[in-house]
Amino acid sequence: VRAIGLQRFPAGIPETDDFVLLDLPSPPLNAGGVRIALKFLSLDPYLRGVISGRHLGHAIALGDVIPGGGVGVVVESDHADWRVGDWVQAETGWRDEAVLPADRLRRLPASVPPSTALGVLGMPGLTAFVGVQDILRPAPAQTIVVSAALGPVGGTVAQLCKRAGARVVGIAGGATKCRLAVERLGYDACIDYRDDHFVAELQRACPERIDGYFDNVGGRVLDVVLGHLNLHARVALCGLIDQYNRAERPPGPNLGPVIAARATLTGLVVYDHFDRLPHMLDALLPLVAERQIDYLEDISHGLTSTPQAFVRLMRGDNIGKALVAL
Amino acid sequence: VRAIGLQRFPAGIPETDDFVLLDLPSPPLNAGGVRIALKFLSLDPYLRGVISGRHLGHAIALGDVIPGGGVGVVVESDHADWRVGDWVQAETGWRDEAVLPADRLRRLPASVPPSTALGVLGMPGLTAFVGVQDILRPAPAQTIVVSAALGPVGGTVAQLCKRAGARVVGIAGGATKCRLAVERLGYDACIDYRDDHFVAELQRACPERIDGYFDNVGGRVLDVVLGHLNLHARVALCGLIDQYNRAERPPGPNLGPVIAARATLTGLVVYDHFDRLPHMLDALLPLVAERQIDYLEDISHGLTSTPQAFVRLMRGDNIGKALVAL
Repeated sequence: VRAIGLQRFPAGIPETDDFVLLDLPSPPLNAGGVRIALKFLSLDPYLRGVISGRHLGHAIALGDVIPGGGVGVVVESDHADWRVGDWVQAETGWRDEAVLPADRLRRLPASVPPSTALGVLGMPGLTAFVGVQDILRPAPAQTIVVSAALGPVGGTVAQLCKRAGARVVGIAGGATKCRLAVERLGYDACIDYRDDHFVAELQRACPERIDGYFDNVGGRVLDVVLGHLNLHARVALCGLIDQYNRAERPPGPNLGPVIAARATLTGLVVYDHFDRLPHMLDALLPLVAERQIDYLEDISHGLTSTPQAFVRLMRGDNIGKALVAL
Repeated sequence: VRAIGLQRFPAGIPETDDFVLLDLPSPPLNAGGVRIALKFLSLDPYLRGVISGRHLGHAIALGDVIPGGGVGVVVESDHADWRVGDWVQAETGWRDEAVLPADRLRRLPASVPPSTALGVLGMPGLTAFVGVQDILRPAPAQTIVVSAALGPVGGTVAQLCKRAGARVVGIAGGATKCRLAVERLGYDACIDYRDDHFVAELQRACPERIDGYFDNVGGRVLDVVLGHLNLHARVALCGLIDQYNRAERPPGPNLGPVIAARATLTGLVVYDHFDRLPHMLDALLPLVAERQIDYLEDISHGLTSTPQAFVRLMRGDNIGKALVAL
């Protein structure tokens, strides 16, 4: 069995010398096991985190085989469900042959090419499907933006959003990719983030601003898109390619832990909710009247004390609600 | 009528000389109008954005009266609903007397001190109420963290979350504030963000990590809390005091526009959703089989091409799903 192992931990963008070709003994077929000759290996951006030990839960040591999905054909089977010649998908790692227990295998449909089990009909396609259903929830005539527009996640997100009636704008690197996004994947437009006029071009492609954004990259692209969101926009935070190859995290609020926690951040502006003031008063007024809900006040006296009281508020020197009594 | 106007646009933290005392003619009482002698003026952090012209929609010019909420007593009325002596709340600005149309006035309940209409039972209380109901949704035994813990928003958020059975940890500046948060507002603990051991103390106060965070400040405090979120945590982005007094925005993804757009950012990790693979295949397999959903593949050949193919993926040089065919 030949395999690709980790030779050294990459610094920055990986180099081919970070990897090494391994020649491993062919494992015996244990009871209930299945031997697979691999036909396709999946390469995915999340592996960059794995080989630095930064991915959720996963981490590998020097000399280990690089993990990842594979598609192959059964060449030997000790399990009744699997026959020689069956196409399967499994987590195999970067190797040309794998022996796995039968319950770790997924059967491939015959109606599509087997490689799709690693892309549009595999983990990336599922990512897109869930992101569109749960987070983006596109509606007709809305504008949805997708970064890494040609990848198996972005490409599937875009086509699902198009089918929901949305206008879909891609973001990709380079003119060739942007042309293919429109011609092959049905994007209404695709903007080159490497272009000097990226921001202006994105604005031009999104004249009604942005209702949903599927983010695979983070960094400047995310920041620019956040600046063009419509009211109540939804953003799926799914990838941070921009920082996978950095040794140190970029400055500013780090959204990596937000992805890891599957957390939700929501902007709150009270102006939208004045119609709920009566409900709030129904709930809180009796509690405040009975001092079951307490409050602190920081009271300055006299109109001319107002500027100084505001300066204190800005310095955080007040304790509780800042008021001026006249 | 005396009022406080804007003398010059503040640079950084405002100074008292940025403001000026104005002596304005007392306006006549128009038909249906009400004259109010103000008793309390509200000072709120959002005003820092207003006096720099950066707040949503609002902006003021040099010489203008600073806007803001006020509470006062009716001293003259041309409207049947309002009598001399009634307590009212309104948007009055920083002045000692105001004339307003009757439909801009809110009547105050007699059961609580009038000043509460600017705090716990006013706009800040409504902010807290909506944020807890719509975004934090605290459940018993969950850990909720609140920054600007003693303010009228934070203090109300905390007590509503306590009433829902959550454990509530505040973040404030200085030992005095932290003590008052626990003694007066019922926080289970309150951590001083100025303390050298802020991160360690926060971790100690949140041994089960953080299920909900009400953010009034942004900056480093937000970043630290994001690093300690539990799975499916909720974060209400409500204020950015940390950057209100900065001329230039800090580096990294800017969450100000996320607040302005009332947008929702949600972390997506596909590992949680493998049970939905059959649903995804039901939806997508026929479409892919009929090429109604298309995809792009970037195929390298041979196991030894894998490292180079991965390097290309990391450089963004691939077009479509990166695969190695064996």
